[in-house]
Amino acid sequence: MNPPPPDPSRQRTIAFVGLGSMGRPMARRLVETGHQVRGYDIALAARDAFTQDGGCAVSSVRDAASNADLLLLMVVNADQAETVLFSDDAASALRTGATVIASCTQPAARARACGQRLADQGLQFLDAPVSGGVAGATSGTLTIMAAGPTETFEGIKDLLATLGDKVHHVGTEWGQGSVVKTVNQLMCGCHIAVAAEALSLARSAGIDGRRALEILGASAAASWMLNDRGPRMLEDDPVVTSAVDIFVKDLGIVLDTARAERKATPIAALAHQLFLSASAQGLGRSDDSQLIRIYEKLGGGSE
Amino acid sequence: MNPPPPDPSRQRTIAFVGLGSMGRPMARRLVETGHQVRGYDIALAARDAFTQDGGCAVSSVRDAASNADLLLLMVVNADQAETVLFSDDAASALRTGATVIASCTQPAARARACGQRLADQGLQFLDAPVSGGVAGATSGTLTIMAAGPTETFEGIKDLLATLGDKVHHVGTEWGQGSVVKTVNQLMCGCHIAVAAEALSLARSAGIDGRRALEILGASAAASWMLNDRGPRMLEDDPVVTSAVDIFVKDLGIVLDTARAERKATPIAALAHQLFLSASAQGLGRSDDSQLIRIYEKLGGGSE
Repeated sequence: MNPPPPDPSRQRTIAFVGLGSMGRPMARRLVETGHQVRGYDIALAARDAFTQDGGCAVSSVRDAASNADLLLLMVVNADQAETVLFSDDAASALRTGATVIASCTQPAARARACGQRLADQGLQFLDAPVSGGVAGATSGTLTIMAAGPTETFEGIKDLLATLGDKVHHVGTEWGQGSVVKTVNQLMCGCHIAVAAEALSLARSAGIDGRRALEILGASAAASWMLNDRGPRMLEDDPVVTSAVDIFVKDLGIVLDTARAERKATPIAALAHQLFLSASAQGLGRSDDSQLIRIYEKLGGGSE
Repeated sequence: MNPPPPDPSRQRTIAFVGLGSMGRPMARRLVETGHQVRGYDIALAARDAFTQDGGCAVSSVRDAASNADLLLLMVVNADQAETVLFSDDAASALRTGATVIASCTQPAARARACGQRLADQGLQFLDAPVSGGVAGATSGTLTIMAAGPTETFEGIKDLLATLGDKVHHVGTEWGQGSVVKTVNQLMCGCHIAVAAEALSLARSAGIDGRRALEILGASAAASWMLNDRGPRMLEDDPVVTSAVDIFVKDLGIVLDTARAERKATPIAALAHQLFLSASAQGLGRSDDSQLIRIYEKLGGGSE
């Protein structure tokens, strides 16, 4: 039983829940490109910020979801997504046949279960995590790893193209998007740790950090993370675009996924230990670039 | 006592020793851009290949170096560089005041010692390792990390610009170039291992390797190594552009350097173990992308 696709001549009403560091610029982009967006975040400050961005902030999940055609979830994890959908009851408030897009990073099994539960309520679901950070969210250049039935994807791909310029339909089964995002996070987390290890060694051996970044960032040593996080690694108290505890969570998902697959992921396991150590030392809410402080402590360095 | 700079109106004679996977395209590029190059390699096949490239291959180090203005060393390691310079006696054969450029990857201390020994013989020295692989060597887009006296660097920077488009004078002291290259290799080696870990997990979880590469290579997970080595990780028997044993050596230099600095480099140490394991299993001369086979064995996977 496939719900009818939305009439493209009709303006869709979009509910957007989770207006944090990624969600706020994504929701703003939808507003700027002419979409009707009702935004909600549990934090009043985030709702106020969305209002300043020209959006319509509402005061409950139900107010956002009520009879909406689309619900985009940019919350932190699977637990928050389920709370929004089934405890705060967004699922019951949406129009029948509406589409829920979960863009949070979550284990594939949770995405699958969520899709099934929504289908049982007559809703469509797309498992569609994103990558590209605040910079990508702001400029509409995210990578989107979407999985779900083809008609669900086709029905909203115009909207996804507003948010990302690399929109992939990675498979028709819920969970496949989350698997790709999990592998993506394996690489991102490990690359942050490698960048911290490299810059820390360079400085210890007398090479200026900015000089090292300039050279390494344009050589075969380059990574997206080195060029994005590297400059902030050289700052004492940089702005937080993504916190250390996000990778404590995401590398945890990587290890759980690999364990379920009976795959050894030794570098991810080691990187996870380093992020855990940073969190244990009070850096959990600091920018993830500050993982470099753990290296400085390991080396008895400039800390 | 600074030797006089070479007369720029005079065509310089360049000796090039080490015509392997990196050296051959570098020497060819010098020939193509109108330089007089006498090439030598211990392997007859490499000398024949240089002749096919239009170069002048000679049959001994001394024939290459005899009264030359410049000697470029693209050998495998510090031991080979010293053998060429002091046992095969290139140093004595060069014109007085000639410049030796060591582009091999070697420990900083060895580069420093080499520069001092050459200076004692009235020669100039540049510690100038490169990064960018065979692709960069072929297209003249290498990163060059040069260290040594400013007048030495200035005297040959036009030549370096033929080989690389990112030519850095990282410091006036021999060894500083090798330190930057060491940090570069830390990142390169770790990124190969991370890419292998990620692609191996993706395939195990049912994601097509090419699809994963396409997505990850254009997202925040991207690294130069993922995009260069990733495609070859999906091949059974790819062409060898850089062998596993090169990273056994280079990550060894990383660990020795970090040990001397009393710095912990846990991810490099782990990556080194993985490369060692690959070498021990007979993959030492295989392309370094084949590190992924170790992951497949760790996971009991498709090997």
